[in-house]
Amino acid sequence: MIAFENNFEKLSKNDLAQKAFESLREEMESGAIGYYTLPEIGIPLLEEVKSIKTDTFTQIVVIGIGGSSLGIKAIDSMLRPANKEAKEILFFENSDPVTISSLMQRVRPEEAAFFVISKSGSTIETTSIFKTVIAHFRLELDAKDNKRVFVITDEGSDLDKFAKHYVLRAFHIPHNVGGRFSVLSAVGVVPLAFAGYNVLPILKGALGFVERFFAHKENHLLGKALFYYKNAQTTSITVLFSYADSMEQFNKWFVQLWGESLGKIDAHKRNTGFTPIGIIGAVDQHSFLQLIVEGPRDKTVTFVRVEDFGNDLRIADVSLKHLEQTNFVNNKTFAHLINEQSKAVMQSVSESGIMVDAITLDTLSEQNVGKLIVYFQLLASLVGFMSGVDTYNQNGVELGKKILYNSLSKQ
Amino acid sequence: MIAFENNFEKLSKNDLAQKAFESLREEMESGAIGYYTLPEIGIPLLEEVKSIKTDTFTQIVVIGIGGSSLGIKAIDSMLRPANKEAKEILFFENSDPVTISSLMQRVRPEEAAFFVISKSGSTIETTSIFKTVIAHFRLELDAKDNKRVFVITDEGSDLDKFAKHYVLRAFHIPHNVGGRFSVLSAVGVVPLAFAGYNVLPILKGALGFVERFFAHKENHLLGKALFYYKNAQTTSITVLFSYADSMEQFNKWFVQLWGESLGKIDAHKRNTGFTPIGIIGAVDQHSFLQLIVEGPRDKTVTFVRVEDFGNDLRIADVSLKHLEQTNFVNNKTFAHLINEQSKAVMQSVSESGIMVDAITLDTLSEQNVGKLIVYFQLLASLVGFMSGVDTYNQNGVELGKKILYNSLSKQ
Repeated sequence: MIAFENNFEKLSKNDLAQKAFESLREEMESGAIGYYTLPEIGIPLLEEVKSIKTDTFTQIVVIGIGGSSLGIKAIDSMLRPANKEAKEILFFENSDPVTISSLMQRVRPEEAAFFVISKSGSTIETTSIFKTVIAHFRLELDAKDNKRVFVITDEGSDLDKFAKHYVLRAFHIPHNVGGRFSVLSAVGVVPLAFAGYNVLPILKGALGFVERFFAHKENHLLGKALFYYKNAQTTSITVLFSYADSMEQFNKWFVQLWGESLGKIDAHKRNTGFTPIGIIGAVDQHSFLQLIVEGPRDKTVTFVRVEDFGNDLRIADVSLKHLEQTNFVNNKTFAHLINEQSKAVMQSVSESGIMVDAITLDTLSEQNVGKLIVYFQLLASLVGFMSGVDTYNQNGVELGKKILYNSLSKQ
Repeated sequence: MIAFENNFEKLSKNDLAQKAFESLREEMESGAIGYYTLPEIGIPLLEEVKSIKTDTFTQIVVIGIGGSSLGIKAIDSMLRPANKEAKEILFFENSDPVTISSLMQRVRPEEAAFFVISKSGSTIETTSIFKTVIAHFRLELDAKDNKRVFVITDEGSDLDKFAKHYVLRAFHIPHNVGGRFSVLSAVGVVPLAFAGYNVLPILKGALGFVERFFAHKENHLLGKALFYYKNAQTTSITVLFSYADSMEQFNKWFVQLWGESLGKIDAHKRNTGFTPIGIIGAVDQHSFLQLIVEGPRDKTVTFVRVEDFGNDLRIADVSLKHLEQTNFVNNKTFAHLINEQSKAVMQSVSESGIMVDAITLDTLSEQNVGKLIVYFQLLASLVGFMSGVDTYNQNGVELGKKILYNSLSKQ
C-alpha cells in the first residue's frame, strides 16, 4: 500500500497538465523513452538470470557510478533490513583511493561476481577502478575468470565490444533509457537478482503503478507537477524528508533524478531547474528543520513515512530521576515515535506557510519500492515537459570531462 | 597546511565587514559567545580525561543527536583512515528502530564506554534510546556500571542532575556554546580522546586559526562572508563540494552549522538564510553537477581538496581491448585523478558563470581538521552578523516538539 496526501490544486481542464500527460503517453507509445516499459522487459530478463548458475557467488561487486550505482544501492538499502540473508553487495564508485583500497580488502575474489556497469562504456572512474581490480586480484578475463565478470552497458558501446572480445556475458541497457532512469533495467535487475533479492515484485509494483497512471491519470501526481512548474521561480528547492534511515540511499537516487533531469538550459536559453535535497527524519530535524521553518520561502517538502518497520522495539519503560518529563513516550514503539515525529513536523512546517505533502508506505516491501521509484520518475517527466527542458540528457557535465582529459593526457 | 583560493572582492574599508569582525571580537572578549575559546578550555579538559582509566574500554558508544553527534562523527570519519587503531565509535542518533536494534547487536556491553550527550538534557530521541539501552543491557547505574556511563550536558540541566543523582561522571558544555558550535567542547574532546585520537593537535590547529583570525583578520574570510551577504537574494544556496569520501560526515556537520545558524526570521521579520548542500567528489559529478552548471544561478560552490590521501594506490597500467581511450589515466595515482577532477570541474563551473572558491588541505591531519572546523564557524558568525540574525539559537523547531508532546502524551 502506498498512499498520497497533498493539498495541491485539484485539476479541472488544465491544458498544460493534460498536455504533459499526453506527452508522456506519446513518449511511451512511440518508444522514444524506454523507462515506462522497463518493468515488462525485466520479467523475461529475470528468467534469463535464473538460467545462470549464481549459487557459487557469495558476494556481488558492483563497479559503477551515478546512474550505474545509485538505484541499486537505494533498493539494496531499503530491502536489506527484511532480507538479511541477501548476499553482500560492495559498491566501487568513487575515485577515492582510501575507499577503493578499503573495499578491495573486503572482496573475496574467489567467491565474488563482478559487475562492470556503464551506459556509455567509458566512464573514467569505472574503467580506472575496473583495471585496478583486475590487476589487484589477477583476474584472467580470457581464462578462469570470464564466468565471474559481467558487463552491463548499451549495446554496441566500447564496453560492449570489450565484453564480446573477452567472451564475457553482457546485459544491455536499452538505448532509450537514460542512466538515472535505468534502475529497473538490467542495471538494477541483474545484480539484485544475483544477490538473492526477490526482484519480480519490484517490477510488478512498478508496472502496476505505470499502468494505473496511464489508465487513471493519477491526478494527485499531475497536480503536484503543475504546482512545481507554476511555482518554479519561488519554490525551486525540493526537499525529500524520509523518515527511515534505510532510505538515505533512496534520497540520493532522487537527488540525481531530480537535479539532472530538470537542471537544464531551456528552449529559451534560460537556466532552469529545481534543487533537490534529501534529508532523513527524525535525525535531520536537529540539522535542517530550523532553516525550513524560518528560512526563505523557497522550499516544498515531501514527507515519506513507513508505517511498519518490521521491528517492534519499544522505548523501555524506565523512569530516570530528573528525566521524568520524558516518560510520555515510554513503552511506545520507536516506529510509532518516529512516525508521530514526522506528522508533528509536517504540521509545524505546514503551519509556517510551506507547501507540504506526504507519501506513506505500509512497509518497505518490494512492491512499494517499485511504485516509489516509478512515482518519482513520472513526476520528473511531467515537470520536465511542463518546464520545456530535455529531461533525459545531461550536457552540462561535458566541459569538465574535456578539461580533465586535456590536463591529464598532457602530463 | 590549509590554503584558500578565491576571487571574492578585496576589502578596502568596507564598514560592514569591519563591523562584523569587531562584533566577533566583542562576542569573544565579553564571553557572550564561547566557541572562540573552546580550544583553550579543551587543553586542561584533555588532561582531566588522561586521569581517567580508559584502557579497559574497547568501544565507545555515543548516544546523542544533531550537535551532540555530527561533529564527533565528522572528526571520527576524517581521521579514521590514518588512525585505524582508534577504538570503534558507535553512534545512536535516530529514533529508527531498525538502526537502534542493529547498533545494539554491535555493542559489547562489558567493554564499552557509554556517553549520553544532550545540551538541553531532555532530547527525546536521546533519552528514549538511553532508557532502551539501559534496559537492554541491564546497566546498573547505581552499582557496577556507574563508571562506564558518562554524561555530557549543560551544567544544571536535568541530565546533569540525573548524573549527580547516580554519581555518574559529567562533563559540561559551557552555557555560551550552542550545540552546533560545541564540537571542540567536551562534546567532541572527551569521546574522541577516549577513542584514542590525538585531540591536542585538533585543538591547537583550531586555536591557531582563531588567533590568526583575530590578529590578521583573514581578509579572504571577510571577503567571502561579505559576498554571501550581498548576494543573499540571488545566490542563497551554498554548496560544499568535498573531494574525499571521508568528508561526507563533515559535509553533514557543515549543513547543520550553516542551515541552523543562518536560517532565521531576521529583525525585520523576514525569512532569511542560506540553504547548505554537501556533496562529495568525484562521485556527485554524476549526480549534482548538471544542475549546478545549467540550472538556476542560485548557487555558490566551495571545493575542498585533500592533496595527500596517505594512500598511493595507482590506476593499474592495464590496457583493455576497445577501452584504450581510457588509458590516459593509467599509472597515475587515484589521489592525483580525484584532485585533477576537482580542478577540472571547478574550472568548468567557474566558466559557466558561478562563483567558486577552493580550500586545499595538504593532508587530513588533526591540525587541519581543527582549522577547517573553526573556519566555517567563523564564516557562519560573520555572515550571521551581516544578515542581522540571531546566529546562535534556533526557535523554529519548537512548534514541532510541542505538537509531538501533545499528540503522544494524550495517547
